[in-house]
Amino acid sequence: MQEMIKEYKRKVEDALDEFFREKIEYVSHLSPEIKEAVEHLREYTLRGGKRLRAILMIKGYGLLKEENWEIVKASSSLELIQSYLLIHDDIMDESELRRMGPTYHKIYERKFKNKLGDYSARFGENMAIIAGDLADAYAKEILLKSNFPEDLKNRAVKKLCEIIEHTGYGQILDIFSSVKDDFGVEDLLKVHKLKTAIYTIDGPLQLGAILAGADEDYLRKISEYAVPVGIAFQIQDDILGLFGEEEVIGKPVTSDLEEGKKTLHILYAMENEEHRDYIMSVLGKKNISREELNKVREIVRESGALARAEEFAAKLVNDALGALEKIDGREEAKEFLRYIANYVIKRRY
Amino acid sequence: MQEMIKEYKRKVEDALDEFFREKIEYVSHLSPEIKEAVEHLREYTLRGGKRLRAILMIKGYGLLKEENWEIVKASSSLELIQSYLLIHDDIMDESELRRMGPTYHKIYERKFKNKLGDYSARFGENMAIIAGDLADAYAKEILLKSNFPEDLKNRAVKKLCEIIEHTGYGQILDIFSSVKDDFGVEDLLKVHKLKTAIYTIDGPLQLGAILAGADEDYLRKISEYAVPVGIAFQIQDDILGLFGEEEVIGKPVTSDLEEGKKTLHILYAMENEEHRDYIMSVLGKKNISREELNKVREIVRESGALARAEEFAAKLVNDALGALEKIDGREEAKEFLRYIANYVIKRRY
Repeated sequence: MQEMIKEYKRKVEDALDEFFREKIEYVSHLSPEIKEAVEHLREYTLRGGKRLRAILMIKGYGLLKEENWEIVKASSSLELIQSYLLIHDDIMDESELRRMGPTYHKIYERKFKNKLGDYSARFGENMAIIAGDLADAYAKEILLKSNFPEDLKNRAVKKLCEIIEHTGYGQILDIFSSVKDDFGVEDLLKVHKLKTAIYTIDGPLQLGAILAGADEDYLRKISEYAVPVGIAFQIQDDILGLFGEEEVIGKPVTSDLEEGKKTLHILYAMENEEHRDYIMSVLGKKNISREELNKVREIVRESGALARAEEFAAKLVNDALGALEKIDGREEAKEFLRYIANYVIKRRY
Repeated sequence: MQEMIKEYKRKVEDALDEFFREKIEYVSHLSPEIKEAVEHLREYTLRGGKRLRAILMIKGYGLLKEENWEIVKASSSLELIQSYLLIHDDIMDESELRRMGPTYHKIYERKFKNKLGDYSARFGENMAIIAGDLADAYAKEILLKSNFPEDLKNRAVKKLCEIIEHTGYGQILDIFSSVKDDFGVEDLLKVHKLKTAIYTIDGPLQLGAILAGADEDYLRKISEYAVPVGIAFQIQDDILGLFGEEEVIGKPVTSDLEEGKKTLHILYAMENEEHRDYIMSVLGKKNISREELNKVREIVRESGALARAEEFAAKLVNDALGALEKIDGREEAKEFLRYIANYVIKRRY
């Protein structure tokens, strides 16, 4: 299965490469500054990433029809949506590192540090806002230029806008989470559904299924599998954010704490008042020390919060596997979705 | 003609109002924070604006077919694109005022000033990045939900993405203009074409014409009228940015200078070395005084730079009017386009 995923990843990256080759050729006639900005966008997009969303879109198509190069190309649009949202996210979180390289705004901030001084930060963010917006336009261009029937393409783009809309709602709740003192488990699960489940699992599968001609009832059945898998994915992502290996997850293990993220295991651990006080004293702090990190890890582990979060995710995956069996689809694609459901909670990165 | 424009403006605003009423009803089930963010977006969008782009889209349709409520609704999507770009623009320019009210990021910055202190600026910008992205998704939703044939809607959304893409390229050139020491008239006209002409005049007309079934050759003819009108529009906009009345143009007359904008009349004025030195000493400075403003105004006027810029814009409008006669379209719409071409250089706001 992992071999197959690697193969798809390569194909999606080939499609992205082809798209950017043409785009860079086009903008090279406009101006060197534009060309450079698009080249950085290309590098940022191709730098890494699991290509999970694109592969899920291919597999959503695969539930109904045999996969082909056309759906691979169309699926690459999701990797541009990913660049769009990550580039904007990195500004919001003031992140410096993404996929083992500098974030988009940092590329330009550093490049113009000498020339612009303090203003270089603003300059970098401005370039990143525009680059994100460009990636979004490119994503829709790819979808709309694909060879599928007009009505299916329109439904797909409508769905894509719906996905982005709900991801935005999830983002709003997410940034309010650090402002809201009574942010609880229910709020968190809403964020996970909007910001991760719809965007990462459910949306991609639905997009593929739409291009294969699935009706609304079929899409609802997909959601019954995809939403719990997506929520489990985010719970595991947050666990890895605290307990994973930095070289593997590609970001510092203190960054979620420094951002003040109230993850499921953190919310569970804070149910105990003493732990709550300690965690609150660390959450949102800059430059968290190794000692503080280890103390938080110990609390989350020893209090049973980690195990509870893991069990919750495992239950969601179990529900999803049950729902999957009710989908009438090609066995090859279903086999993949079974694998993914288990993978999201077993992965180490 | 002005009565008719007012009438269209009202209709477009009715369509926007209807859209937001439904959207706010929908998000009120998600969370109060999301609802509030969308309510601010509604207020920002409906606060004011000439609705020029939407009206041009209606008139682009009107070149080929009689206008109806369906094209009015579809045209309101451009006002959401306008909100999207303005909200992001206001972040980039660190503007506080837009259409006589606070910019989107300032609404949230002020609201959370007490609670978040210094971080409130970041918080406000983050909310504004998301709100802009939401407005973009809404715009495409409106277009795709309209009742036009699938293939025409598909072409229209593709065109809309192309417009946003080229506006982004124009933005890149624009923000590089303050970094680039040898930024000249040719560079400026490229920015005007990409950032204003395509976005404000050519794109809207083409979108309307596409929904009425126009072919590529027809769209090219529209561009021959629309691009020069759009460039003239921006030249006049910049002139009003320096010589207009603050209460009418809705922003301080020093703001373009403070942003370091190299406009056509500024570039012309800087051809004289002495003037160049003085202008360079003021351009990009914060808190420009009334005295400095008046000195710049005097230079631009006395050196003949203002007259040259006005003549250039007038020539463009003349070219456009010639091109308009080659378009085979309904007389009512052409009459409007004749009016607009003259209006862009005669307007005082």
